[in-house]
Amino acid sequence: MAELRTLSHGVRLFVDPMPGLESAAIGVWAKAGAIDETLEENGVAHLLEHMAFKGTGKRTARQIAEEIESVGGYLNAETSYQRTGYYARVLKGDIELALDILADILTDPLFDEGELAKEREVVVQEIGEAADSPDDAVHEQLQTLIFKDQSLGRPILGSVESVRSHGRGRLRGFMDRLYFPGNLIVAAAGAVDEEAIARAVEARFPKVNAAKERPARPSPHYVGGLAADERDIEQTHIALAFPGVSARHEDAYAMRIFAEALGGGMASRLFQTIREERGLAYSVYSYAHSYDEAGILGVYVGADAENAVLASELVRQEMEGLAENLTEQEVERARAMLKSTLLMGLESPYGRADAAAGQAFTFGRPIPAAEIRELLERVTVEDVRRCAARSLNDGKPAISIVGPADAAAVEKAVGAAH
Amino acid sequence: MAELRTLSHGVRLFVDPMPGLESAAIGVWAKAGAIDETLEENGVAHLLEHMAFKGTGKRTARQIAEEIESVGGYLNAETSYQRTGYYARVLKGDIELALDILADILTDPLFDEGELAKEREVVVQEIGEAADSPDDAVHEQLQTLIFKDQSLGRPILGSVESVRSHGRGRLRGFMDRLYFPGNLIVAAAGAVDEEAIARAVEARFPKVNAAKERPARPSPHYVGGLAADERDIEQTHIALAFPGVSARHEDAYAMRIFAEALGGGMASRLFQTIREERGLAYSVYSYAHSYDEAGILGVYVGADAENAVLASELVRQEMEGLAENLTEQEVERARAMLKSTLLMGLESPYGRADAAAGQAFTFGRPIPAAEIRELLERVTVEDVRRCAARSLNDGKPAISIVGPADAAAVEKAVGAAH
Repeated sequence: MAELRTLSHGVRLFVDPMPGLESAAIGVWAKAGAIDETLEENGVAHLLEHMAFKGTGKRTARQIAEEIESVGGYLNAETSYQRTGYYARVLKGDIELALDILADILTDPLFDEGELAKEREVVVQEIGEAADSPDDAVHEQLQTLIFKDQSLGRPILGSVESVRSHGRGRLRGFMDRLYFPGNLIVAAAGAVDEEAIARAVEARFPKVNAAKERPARPSPHYVGGLAADERDIEQTHIALAFPGVSARHEDAYAMRIFAEALGGGMASRLFQTIREERGLAYSVYSYAHSYDEAGILGVYVGADAENAVLASELVRQEMEGLAENLTEQEVERARAMLKSTLLMGLESPYGRADAAAGQAFTFGRPIPAAEIRELLERVTVEDVRRCAARSLNDGKPAISIVGPADAAAVEKAVGAAH
Repeated sequence: MAELRTLSHGVRLFVDPMPGLESAAIGVWAKAGAIDETLEENGVAHLLEHMAFKGTGKRTARQIAEEIESVGGYLNAETSYQRTGYYARVLKGDIELALDILADILTDPLFDEGELAKEREVVVQEIGEAADSPDDAVHEQLQTLIFKDQSLGRPILGSVESVRSHGRGRLRGFMDRLYFPGNLIVAAAGAVDEEAIARAVEARFPKVNAAKERPARPSPHYVGGLAADERDIEQTHIALAFPGVSARHEDAYAMRIFAEALGGGMASRLFQTIREERGLAYSVYSYAHSYDEAGILGVYVGADAENAVLASELVRQEMEGLAENLTEQEVERARAMLKSTLLMGLESPYGRADAAAGQAFTFGRPIPAAEIRELLERVTVEDVRRCAARSLNDGKPAISIVGPADAAAVEKAVGAAH
C-alpha cells in the first residue's frame, strides 16, 4: 500500500495508483471542520469552503470554473464536523492543472466582500433546502440533541443568523488558525504518478507556518433528549441515536458490526421485522458513526403517524433482542458485508483518497485494507453484544421527530425496557 | 468492446471484463417499465419489482436476503419508465450465486397474497416519503404535466389507491406480457468471465416464450402546462420542462451539450447568472432527458418565494441568450465535460452494465464509448442553437411548483419572451 509522506513545508501527501484507470481524484483535506468553530463562528468552516471557489489573486470565480471544466474535470468540496475536503475528478493528463487550482484557492483566496455578501445568501438558500427535506431536517435536529450545546451539536451549515453575521475577518481568522501546511493532507488516487504530484505539491504550497501548533479540539460528550418538529406531512420521520464509541475505541469495529446486524441490509433485524414482517416502513436502517472522541449508534425509520409508536417499540425490542441472542451467523454476515463494502469503496478513486485523508487525521496514517479486515475478523459475538448493551444502558437516547407525532409516546417506546 | 450475444432461449447477454477489479456487477434488465402500464395498472411495474424479492418456489424473502448478504453482496432493483433492472454487486467468486438468485426471483416468484398485502403498504410508505420531499414531489408533478394523461405522465410508484388495488393476477399479467426471454438482457461488468456467465445464464432461464412478440409501446407526446402544490415551506421549488428530442433523434447529443452549457456545471450559464452573480439559489441545474420516442429539456431551481419570479425570468433569458449567442468555447467545454463523465461512468461496474442494457433496448446494441465520443465531436454550435430554439418554440413549457408561490407570475416569466 502507498504510504503517507511529509513534504518540506509540512503538507502530508498520500498517492495511491490504481492500475487500469484513465482518471484520477486529487484533493486537499484540512483537519478543520464545524467541531473547530466557536459558538460565534457557527457555519464558518462551511462558508469558507464556499468562498474558496469565489476568486483568488489570479483567478476569478468564473475562471476557476471554466479552467477545470474546459478539460472535462469537476471540482467539489465537502465540509464535515472533523474535516473539509476540496477535490477534483480529472482525466490523468489534467492532474497538475487540478492541483494548481486547488492550491490557488486554498493559499490565495480573496474573500471579496461583494462575493461574500452574495455567497452568504446562497448558503441561506442551502439552509432552506435542508429544512424543507424531512430527511435532512430530522438528522440535523438529532445532532443537536446528541451533542447539545457543543460545537458537534450545531449545524454544519450554520443558522440563517450566524451565516449572515460572518464577515471576511471571521473567515480569515478560522483559516489562519487551521489551514496551515501541517494541518493539510493532499491525497490522490487513480491514474496518478507519485513523484510528479510530490514535485507539484512541493512547489505550490508556501513554506509558512510549517511548525504551527494545531489548537486542541473540544472533547465532545453525548447528551441525548427529545425534540419534535411537528409538520403536517405524510410520514413521521424518526431519527434516533444511542451512545456509541469513538473511532479510536477498541470496540470501533464491533460497533460497526452491531449497526450492520441491527439495520444494515435486507437481512438485518430492523429490515426484517419492521419492513418485511410488518410492512410498516419503506426506509428503516441503522448506522454507527464515530468521531475521534465520541460515537453513536443511529437509527432511522419513516412511517405513518399511526405506526410511529409501534415502529419505535420494535427498534427498542430488536436492540434488546440483539444484546441477548445475537448469533454467530449474523456476525459473520455483517462482517462479510463490511468487508465487501470496504473493497468496493477502494475501487473508487475519490473513495480511496477521502478515506486515507480521514484515517491520517484520526490515526496519523492511512489504515491498509488488510488491517481493517483483520480488525473485523477479530470481533466476536460477545463484543457486539457488549456494544448493544452499552448503547442501551450508557445514557438516554436522542429522539428526533419530524412530522405528525405523539412525541411523548415515541419517547416512552424508545426509552423504556420491555 | 464486448458484444451483445443472444443465447438459445432468447435472453441476450453482455459481459464486459474490467481488468484490475476484484468485484463485479451483474444484473437482469427487462424492457418493461411504467410506460408499459395501462391506466388500471399504474404502479404495477414497480410493485412487481418489489415482489420479486418476496419469495420464490425455493427461497423465502429472508433466504434471498441472507444468501446474498452472507457473501457480502447486495441486491437491488430499479424501475424506471422504460426498463426495470435487478442487479447484484458481489466479489468475483460470487457471481454465479448472484445470478442464481436473480434468475430465481425473475422466473419463479410466488407473489404470495400475504406478502403482497404487506408489500403494498411498504410502497404506500415509499409514496409518502416521496411526497414529503419537495425535490421528489416537484419532479413527479412535472412529469404529469409533460406527458399529461399518458403512461409516461403517471408516477412510477403509482398512487396509494392504485397500489392498493393490485392483486397477484395483475402482477402475473404484467409479468407474462413483458418478462419473457426475448425481452430480457443479462449484463455483467467488472471481474467477470464471459463463458462462465453464458453457461450459467443458459442453464438458469427456462426455454419458454422465446419467440413471443413484445406488445407495442404507446408513442408519447409532449403536452406541457402549469401545476402548483402550495406548501408553507422555506423555498419555492421550481421544475421546468421544455420540448426536447428522443434518444434516437439526430440531435440527441446536441441536446445534451445544450443542457450542459445551459446548466450542467459551475461554468454554465444558469449557475453563473442565478447562483454566482445574483446569489438567488443554492441548487440550479438543467438536464436533457430522453426516452425512445420523446425527450425534454429540464431545469430546476430552488429559491426564496420573493426571488422565484426573478429566477424564472433568468432561466428564460439564459435559454434565449444561448439560442442567439452560444460560443464555440462553451460547446467545447460542454463536450469535454460529457466525454469525461462518460469515461468516469465506465469505471463503475454497475454503470457499465446498466448503460449497456439501456442502449441495447433502445438501439439494439450497446454503443461503444468511442462511438459516443465521435457523435459528441460532430455537434456544432448551430446544432446546439437549433436545440435551444426548438425547446423555446416547439410547445409550451411544463411548469411545476412546490412551495409558496405566485404561480401565475412564474408562468408569465417562464412563458413570455423578453
